Amino acid sequence: MSAGLATDPAPIAQAAAGRNTDLARLSLNTATTKHLTLAEAAKAAAEAGLSAIGPWRDRVQEVGAEQAATILKDYGLRASSLCRGGFLTAATREGRDAALEDNKRAIEEAATLGTKELIMVVGGLSAATTPGGPAAPYQVVDGVDPGRDVVAARQRVADRIGELVPFASSHGVRLVIEPLHPMFAADRAVVSTIGQALTLCEPFESYVVGLVVDTYHVWWDPRLKSQIARAGQERRIASYQVCDFSLPFAAEPLNSRGHVGDGYVDFATITRWVTQAGYTGDIEVEIFNEEIWAAPAAQTLATMSERYLRHVAPFLRD
Amino acid sequence: MSAGLATDPAPIAQAAAGRNTDLARLSLNTATTKHLTLAEAAKAAAEAGLSAIGPWRDRVQEVGAEQAATILKDYGLRASSLCRGGFLTAATREGRDAALEDNKRAIEEAATLGTKELIMVVGGLSAATTPGGPAAPYQVVDGVDPGRDVVAARQRVADRIGELVPFASSHGVRLVIEPLHPMFAADRAVVSTIGQALTLCEPFESYVVGLVVDTYHVWWDPRLKSQIARAGQERRIASYQVCDFSLPFAAEPLNSRGHVGDGYVDFATITRWVTQAGYTGDIEVEIFNEEIWAAPAAQTLATMSERYLRHVAPFLRD
Repeated sequence: MSAGLATDPAPIAQAAAGRNTDLARLSLNTATTKHLTLAEAAKAAAEAGLSAIGPWRDRVQEVGAEQAATILKDYGLRASSLCRGGFLTAATREGRDAALEDNKRAIEEAATLGTKELIMVVGGLSAATTPGGPAAPYQVVDGVDPGRDVVAARQRVADRIGELVPFASSHGVRLVIEPLHPMFAADRAVVSTIGQALTLCEPFESYVVGLVVDTYHVWWDPRLKSQIARAGQERRIASYQVCDFSLPFAAEPLNSRGHVGDGYVDFATITRWVTQAGYTGDIEVEIFNEEIWAAPAAQTLATMSERYLRHVAPFLRD
Repeated sequence: MSAGLATDPAPIAQAAAGRNTDLARLSLNTATTKHLTLAEAAKAAAEAGLSAIGPWRDRVQEVGAEQAATILKDYGLRASSLCRGGFLTAATREGRDAALEDNKRAIEEAATLGTKELIMVVGGLSAATTPGGPAAPYQVVDGVDPGRDVVAARQRVADRIGELVPFASSHGVRLVIEPLHPMFAADRAVVSTIGQALTLCEPFESYVVGLVVDTYHVWWDPRLKSQIARAGQERRIASYQVCDFSLPFAAEPLNSRGHVGDGYVDFATITRWVTQAGYTGDIEVEIFNEEIWAAPAAQTLATMSERYLRHVAPFLRD
């Protein structure tokens, strides 16, 4: 028995052979089961009939990337992605160097795990000293406040992606830009649309820079149809993440996501667009929600599978 | 003394003659002083040296549009806009008819007040039965959930604007589309960007359909510079509203706005863009914020004037 596993994985691996093919593309992003270790999440996913999992770096680093890869292998799961690199908007040299080093470690972790896709949350404004916190005092230097200069922050993102591309390429890993909902533009990601992500992708080969379509973040975009189509033509779609935009907001708005079908997203239409764009990869469920985190893992896996089969899977056929 | 005024307006009108020219373009949108009557808000604005006010319909309807116009005149204020018409996404015939009737009343109120600009909050998805509330149950009809079909909802907005244009035109009133922050796309407005608003404007003359640039709603848009420039070329900018995007969110996220300078918006840059686009109209301050609503009106007016002079006015010169 491999170190770190609570039970003998042999029966799980056997179950993998008879894995539910209807769930073949469904992946558990481990943010959805936030309180579980990687091994516990892998066990829950495998027992629910899934073949894929999208781990977060903190749970990978808990056991080390090599051991994490072993856990996934023992449970018969492939890694659909690794969350997350990014945080590229630091305005100082020290901040830039630290970010590049951390991203290189993330690229290595992704390669060790055997996933090509490193999700990148690009970072917010310099005036955002803590995520969700108040802005630093306003100051104008040469006609603009550098802490609030979103144009300059986006340029730093573009520059640093360029600096990381050779390292990513040599490790067989793709930098996957994740546009975030504009409610997080100030403090988490100054990239807010698929169109904007495509502009960042443009100078680079599609095997080394791509983007993820996360329904929570982009469902509202009036240009979503055309930009998903373009992303497909350019072979940029590295991941499709499904979770719902729910109201009312949670006390911590970051944790306002819900199970597919509980909120306002038109999954039938968006899933068709992603399918027509040619995407055939994994479909991750990534939900930040206090109630879901408190629920038993088996219940969460059952609900996400049922919602996937009802609201997403029927629209995966072109 | 006109009915409805608490004090003799003559001294106020006299003060108007010596009005602060530095504040000549600043307007108090009465949402900022939510708990005041129209007369109280007009008094506070005039005493603070402003020449313009942007009333909300509920406070106008409280005294009737004719009396509201008299109040503004007595205090030496012009109406920079009327908030708000809109709510155009009802999926039923009854809902459509009721919305068109209500918007015609709003157009008449705007004309009576002497403002050209009727701000339009276009409305959310049909699945949003109450603003801020949970979505109606998911259902698929002919391959899509009509309650969540944002493409169809946007089409209804376009259709109803077209139906209102003749009435607006004959009353000398412009329908001013307000893109709202995407956090409100589900339940308040399926129009989220300046670019999208321009597409809605396109079939119509610029004197009858325009848009408002509200920094809270649009600051994050990666295409903001180019779309403001295009809006200026097409003479579509009917209003510029300044208030800040602050974190953390308030308990009711709708009320998370802040005084200019307290949040993350780059007012220097956006104000330059609006100025370069040729906009020379009023600049409204519209803040939804529980603490500001609880503050004395004179304090709010003083703060908004000071922030305007520091963060906005210097960038109004081309």
